[in-house]
Amino acid sequence: MKETKVAVGVVGATGYSGMELVRLLSSHPRVNLTYVAGHGESVVSLAEKLPQFVSLPSLNLEPFDVEVAAKRCEVVFVALPSGTAGAVAVALWNKGCVVIDLSGDLRLPQDQYVQWYHLPAVAAEAQKQAVYGLTEWHRREVSSANLIANPGCYATAAILALRPLLDLDLPLRRGAVVVDAKSGVSGAGRKPVQAFQLAELSDNFYAYKVGQHQHTPEIEAELSGLSPLLLNTQLLPIARGIFVCAYVPFEQGVDEAVFHSLYARAYEGEKFITVLPPGQVPQLKHVLGSNACHVGLNFDSRSRVLQVFSVLDNLQKGAAGQAVQNMNVRMGWLEDTGLSVLSMFP
Amino acid sequence: MKETKVAVGVVGATGYSGMELVRLLSSHPRVNLTYVAGHGESVVSLAEKLPQFVSLPSLNLEPFDVEVAAKRCEVVFVALPSGTAGAVAVALWNKGCVVIDLSGDLRLPQDQYVQWYHLPAVAAEAQKQAVYGLTEWHRREVSSANLIANPGCYATAAILALRPLLDLDLPLRRGAVVVDAKSGVSGAGRKPVQAFQLAELSDNFYAYKVGQHQHTPEIEAELSGLSPLLLNTQLLPIARGIFVCAYVPFEQGVDEAVFHSLYARAYEGEKFITVLPPGQVPQLKHVLGSNACHVGLNFDSRSRVLQVFSVLDNLQKGAAGQAVQNMNVRMGWLEDTGLSVLSMFP
Amino acid sequence: MKETKVAVGVVGATGYSGMELVRLLSSHPRVNLTYVAGHGESVVSLAEKLPQFVSLPSLNLEPFDVEVAAKRCEVVFVALPSGTAGAVAVALWNKGCVVIDLSGDLRLPQDQYVQWYHLPAVAAEAQKQAVYGLTEWHRREVSSANLIANPGCYATAAILALRPLLDLDLPLRRGAVVVDAKSGVSGAGRKPVQAFQLAELSDNFYAYKVGQHQHTPEIEAELSGLSPLLLNTQLLPIARGIFVCAYVPFEQGVDEAVFHSLYARAYEGEKFITVLPPGQVPQLKHVLGSNACHVGLNFDSRSRVLQVFSVLDNLQKGAAGQAVQNMNVRMGWLEDTGLSVLSMFP
Amino acid sequence: MKETKVAVGVVGATGYSGMELVRLLSSHPRVNLTYVAGHGESVVSLAEKLPQFVSLPSLNLEPFDVEVAAKRCEVVFVALPSGTAGAVAVALWNKGCVVIDLSGDLRLPQDQYVQWYHLPAVAAEAQKQAVYGLTEWHRREVSSANLIANPGCYATAAILALRPLLDLDLPLRRGAVVVDAKSGVSGAGRKPVQAFQLAELSDNFYAYKVGQHQHTPEIEAELSGLSPLLLNTQLLPIARGIFVCAYVPFEQGVDEAVFHSLYARAYEGEKFITVLPPGQVPQLKHVLGSNACHVGLNFDSRSRVLQVFSVLDNLQKGAAGQAVQNMNVRMGWLEDTGLSVLSMFP
Repeated sequence: MKETKVAVGVVGATGYSGMELVRLLSSHPRVNLTYVAGHGESVVSLAEKLPQFVSLPSLNLEPFDVEVAAKRCEVVFVALPSGTAGAVAVALWNKGCVVIDLSGDLRLPQDQYVQWYHLPAVAAEAQKQAVYGLTEWHRREVSSANLIANPGCYATAAILALRPLLDLDLPLRRGAVVVDAKSGVSGAGRKPVQAFQLAELSDNFYAYKVGQHQHTPEIEAELSGLSPLLLNTQLLPIARGIFVCAYVPFEQGVDEAVFHSLYARAYEGEKFITVLPPGQVPQLKHVLGSNACHVGLNFDSRSRVLQVFSVLDNLQKGAAGQAVQNMNVRMGWLEDTGLSVLSMFP
Repeated sequence: MKETKVAVGVVGATGYSGMELVRLLSSHPRVNLTYVAGHGESVVSLAEKLPQFVSLPSLNLEPFDVEVAAKRCEVVFVALPSGTAGAVAVALWNKGCVVIDLSGDLRLPQDQYVQWYHLPAVAAEAQKQAVYGLTEWHRREVSSANLIANPGCYATAAILALRPLLDLDLPLRRGAVVVDAKSGVSGAGRKPVQAFQLAELSDNFYAYKVGQHQHTPEIEAELSGLSPLLLNTQLLPIARGIFVCAYVPFEQGVDEAVFHSLYARAYEGEKFITVLPPGQVPQLKHVLGSNACHVGLNFDSRSRVLQVFSVLDNLQKGAAGQAVQNMNVRMGWLEDTGLSVLSMFP
Repeated sequence: MKETKVAVGVVGATGYSGMELVRLLSSHPRVNLTYVAGHGESVVSLAEKLPQFVSLPSLNLEPFDVEVAAKRCEVVFVALPSGTAGAVAVALWNKGCVVIDLSGDLRLPQDQYVQWYHLPAVAAEAQKQAVYGLTEWHRREVSSANLIANPGCYATAAILALRPLLDLDLPLRRGAVVVDAKSGVSGAGRKPVQAFQLAELSDNFYAYKVGQHQHTPEIEAELSGLSPLLLNTQLLPIARGIFVCAYVPFEQGVDEAVFHSLYARAYEGEKFITVLPPGQVPQLKHVLGSNACHVGLNFDSRSRVLQVFSVLDNLQKGAAGQAVQNMNVRMGWLEDTGLSVLSMFP
Repeated sequence: MKETKVAVGVVGATGYSGMELVRLLSSHPRVNLTYVAGHGESVVSLAEKLPQFVSLPSLNLEPFDVEVAAKRCEVVFVALPSGTAGAVAVALWNKGCVVIDLSGDLRLPQDQYVQWYHLPAVAAEAQKQAVYGLTEWHRREVSSANLIANPGCYATAAILALRPLLDLDLPLRRGAVVVDAKSGVSGAGRKPVQAFQLAELSDNFYAYKVGQHQHTPEIEAELSGLSPLLLNTQLLPIARGIFVCAYVPFEQGVDEAVFHSLYARAYEGEKFITVLPPGQVPQLKHVLGSNACHVGLNFDSRSRVLQVFSVLDNLQKGAAGQAVQNMNVRMGWLEDTGLSVLSMFP
């Protein structure tokens, strides 16, 4: 018996996360991508707008219409900018869709949202209902949620790196945890910005939103014992990928093996998370194009600082890939359906 | 009824084409990757040698042994350097395997091979039996071949760009056809070379093997009416991808629509080849990570030169992807099984 | 006796050519950079607008005012976009300044300008007075000119590559000359464009303005015997640099040595032009950051096509560097004053 | 009266620091580059070995000979690998040359050298005489030294970032200082390494020598009050540049203005060091190709961590540029003779 496919839609397909969703969903074996919306005012061929999809000539890009979307889709992914996405997500949720929102709009309580996003809270009530979709740590809630707040890219990398430490005897620790994070520029969105032109960003590297990145509060919410922490966000001169090195200071020396077994336990059986063996540190390019996250550990006995490295593809595990993973969990499918753990290396 | 899977192997897995084969075959739904050989002398975990495969912990990298390979595999991909590959391919073929050889060893008659490769002919007799595996133009022969010479990366791009022209009234043409080709550096193999270090190749661009690239004769063999042509091979400061602009001079002006309908006919129904609409030219990044080839056309009425652009991923349609495509044809499976037409953009 | 310095100014300092002019002029030993204008409406610190100049705290960026500029400067460089620059250049010239205009506005006769730039002719009368500043070929005119049309970047590379051939017995040639040119993206200007964002251009390569690049007529004007030619302009995923491979078809075989001695003669004693020895082809990175142009030759005896390679830095020899070179010639200084022939390699 | 020029030499010209020395010295107005040595066994043209110097046809690359070098040069730069350089430097010093050694051989006491370099100490006695050449902090000693140990690239960036803090009331501080450092790959030398091939390093980022980088002890020696610190060294997918973010934890909140005035005082009048105004953070590309170092400050009041950012070009201020700066100081010339503070941006 042939499995029936579930109808899904993407709102905001012309951004980088939206494109990645179209790519993943158009070859996902359990879904039909039946609705793709952009911000235009008329229906155009998707390939005309986004020529990388020239081999999907039958897909159209439609103006967003909540009625149409809800009628045509069982699951809808919202890949709009923060400040716009939340209201769209809630409208679709109210119409009965399973909604996975990739923006920051549903991740934070109203006061924090206003403080960090400098925007009016778009969906304060619904936010309380939304499940924070960091799959590995909220799988149970995701499995029955109809409104999922997909985590931020930096947040995913930082939380996957640090969350296992919450099960450690924390009094050992002293001082602030620092999350030194670097991202490819696709994380900054698709709107043209002079500083993100190749001529200016190639061969370059710099920090931005210093001490003010809006992913900070969602990280701290998931890592209560380690707060407040310092998230330093920096731009790599590449398109994709997040590399985190988190520094956790300890009062005394700790046997590195303690951390290795802690992390091994935390991520045992996880398809997308690999804890690297002692002595090995992750490479960003080993995960690009996949939904994998690699985690590496080093305890520096001289300074008594634990380094936790994590790498992921910001458009996959940091956005569209994790969104599909959440859909898989929600629909009861194998969690890696339509997703890959193997990177495009080299 | 569950389909039984076919046992396949890769010889030469630690090179770039070999890695890409492992990546594609490990998620191909019709095969079991049961044999992976490198050039080492003992069995090691593949992930230890190639950490991007850390999430495939059960795969081993074995020393090559023709008996073991033939016993364990129905289909074997040989991804060894030219000069070594041919003998291995023939040995496996003699043992009854279906063999797809990605090297240049089986593509050329003995005299041409010696002339262009500056190597002793490794498989002169078998070469006559081998089918040249440019799938779109040799599908019928591939479908029953047990020894397939997978084309070179530049050759695939050039032939896909120019072959439709053989059906045109050639007397119109005057002067030499020039194939201006640019490749990412993974095409040059994995052996460390000073000039391919990132410090020297980044922000750089240059021609190499000027007038002497070994893919020239296999291109000319497929494009007899257009020979001798000039193949200019140049290095792009990127990892993957081939961009070809072929220049075909004509005696007189020709209506560009003539070329568009010629190419549309030639590639009608082809899953991996897209002829772009008039006025559109291909972008390399629109095919990276996929087995697609995009072709664009422009007739310059001032100089009466037809420009044919083609782009592909040198490790996919230019190597491992086309090899898998050939396996699919040979085994009677859907031609795009385990392959994608969508690139990792951005 | 201390040499007195000449007062110079830059109009359009916030574009890439303008920045490069500021950089070169601020360390040029014969000039004082006394006037720097942008498109703003008030005076600001240059370093505030362009933080790479933080170590030049005394330079201001002023709104452009022709009276002020003419009063303060003996030589003015105009680095404004085509369509705006010409009128500014002429106004300054009328005030008695020596003016070097880097735009396309003064390079072409009115009809060609309108045809290729799709703009109204901005300075049709003055254009006749302007000297085309490809220094090596127009040194004498430049030495006494008060209005200099600095050549386009592609044009400089193409003309330096091909102009020596005009002294060859041209009847040998058949068919069209093709100039396959690739440029770093700084050549496209500083205005943010989605396709030039690093996320989209990194790992990418494509042709643009196919058959329609506005540098075509200025190349043809300098290379009358080789016209019409086909200029194919393509984007490299790097910030700087132009690489040209020109293809010149011949009826018969020609001894490559003929070309080598022709080029050696043409460029003998030129400080910025190096003709590479037989068998050697230029690398783009060997000229980046310098005002040098390297030229390489290869005659392909199979196809009877001469390949001429040339490389230069589009912001130096292709723009600001050549502009300074022209100033040096005009002022009677050593031609390489304030300029370098050595690239930043690696 | 024309100044007489000082004869200088470079030993190890075929490495990246050596090339940069040749580039800087060949246009330095106070010196004649009279001796260039590589590791070959016969005299060859430098341009033949290093084609970027094709416009310096008169320079030869000679086998190293201490007698010849000492006879021909007043000042010699030694740009050989650690483990080889020290003995060469000492031999030249013993012959009476002023020697500036760019390796690690003369920077550390014997025990530390052996521990961190895993090499036998090459110049233990002479090391005590050598002056550590971080110019801004050791200008007086450099001005009379005949044997100068030029600092490591990471060390220069870290010390320039942190040294002003030694004048602060340190008891405020708690926990370890972390130096998160990222470097372009030219810092790793010119010997071909698979992991540094563009195909593997492009689009990549990773840490290496985790907790074990040999620049750690020279940093700690200069920053005694901040030791032991953690130096995390990471590779950027670019050729040049070092970006440091140092994290200094404090017990209590500190007014950021305290740090700004501390740094302003420390670097007042320094030609190559710029402390950026409050709210501004440095960009790596703003210093590439120059001898400048930009320093930025941010105090994160939530976590009470001071972030100090510093950027420099590893081959200039991190190696060859600082070596020339040291020569200028030693010879009593203007400190920026032959050096630039302006980067090649874009």
